[in-house]
Amino acid sequence: MTEILAPGFEIARGVWRHLDTLDVTALPEFVPARGLRVDLACLTPKGEIWIVEVKSSLADFRADQKWEGYLPFCDRFYWAVPADFPSEVLPLETGLIIADRFDAAILREGPVTPLAAARRKALSLKIARTAMRRQLGWLEPDLGLARADG
Amino acid sequence: MTEILAPGFEIARGVWRHLDTLDVTALPEFVPARGLRVDLACLTPKGEIWIVEVKSSLADFRADQKWEGYLPFCDRFYWAVPADFPSEVLPLETGLIIADRFDAAILREGPVTPLAAARRKALSLKIARTAMRRQLGWLEPDLGLARADG
Repeated sequence: MTEILAPGFEIARGVWRHLDTLDVTALPEFVPARGLRVDLACLTPKGEIWIVEVKSSLADFRADQKWEGYLPFCDRFYWAVPADFPSEVLPLETGLIIADRFDAAILREGPVTPLAAARRKALSLKIARTAMRRQLGWLEPDLGLARADG
Repeated sequence: MTEILAPGFEIARGVWRHLDTLDVTALPEFVPARGLRVDLACLTPKGEIWIVEVKSSLADFRADQKWEGYLPFCDRFYWAVPADFPSEVLPLETGLIIADRFDAAILREGPVTPLAAARRKALSLKIARTAMRRQLGWLEPDLGLARADG
């Protein structure tokens, strides 16, 4: 388990740190809809929603049957991969971030496919409430996190 | 310092726990605008914004010169006080919550004075981004929290 998760976690960490320097905030492990879980859901200062999916290897990317299902839940979509990832396999109409555990670089911006305003509003609220509730879950673990991602 | 802060913190904790049972999420120490800092900013499932101000004593309430300045930043405003607080001094047009460190009860709902949609949207985004950035600040304290409340 550790061997599978650790590389992706390190990439996510570098992405998160880099996005912070761009004033883009990120929430890990966000559930935009039942059955979907994205690695990072992000909010820009203007309220644009980005989704970043981390792929630590080509095998990890090829095993992903769900990523196109994430597109209706963001204004921009990015992959985040390590420097040795064969990025030519990634669709050109998606954004590309190269990352290690310390930092990241956006090599290709994700094209904007704007969400409908009502959906962006609902997703932003869900992101906000998830982030707020996780904070309570950490401070008060006895309350449980049953609804944290609901 | 401890003597002054601790009672308010315990009340805020009870409120937070109670609001969680109502599916209302809360963010402590939110800055809605420069020079203002509210004890709890809350988001309901429908996206209504509540502000809860904690007063541990009558003296604490009487020293507050700012609370009316919070009203333009919420749909509902509540006081949260301990059971022995003389609640008759609180304005009737505000909500009232009685709390201890473990739980709370809403004795009077805050009347709804709806925010303009654009302001609610901007405040919701700021609440979301603040909650998200604090999470990063805790996981990565070396990044600092300089912008956490910005």
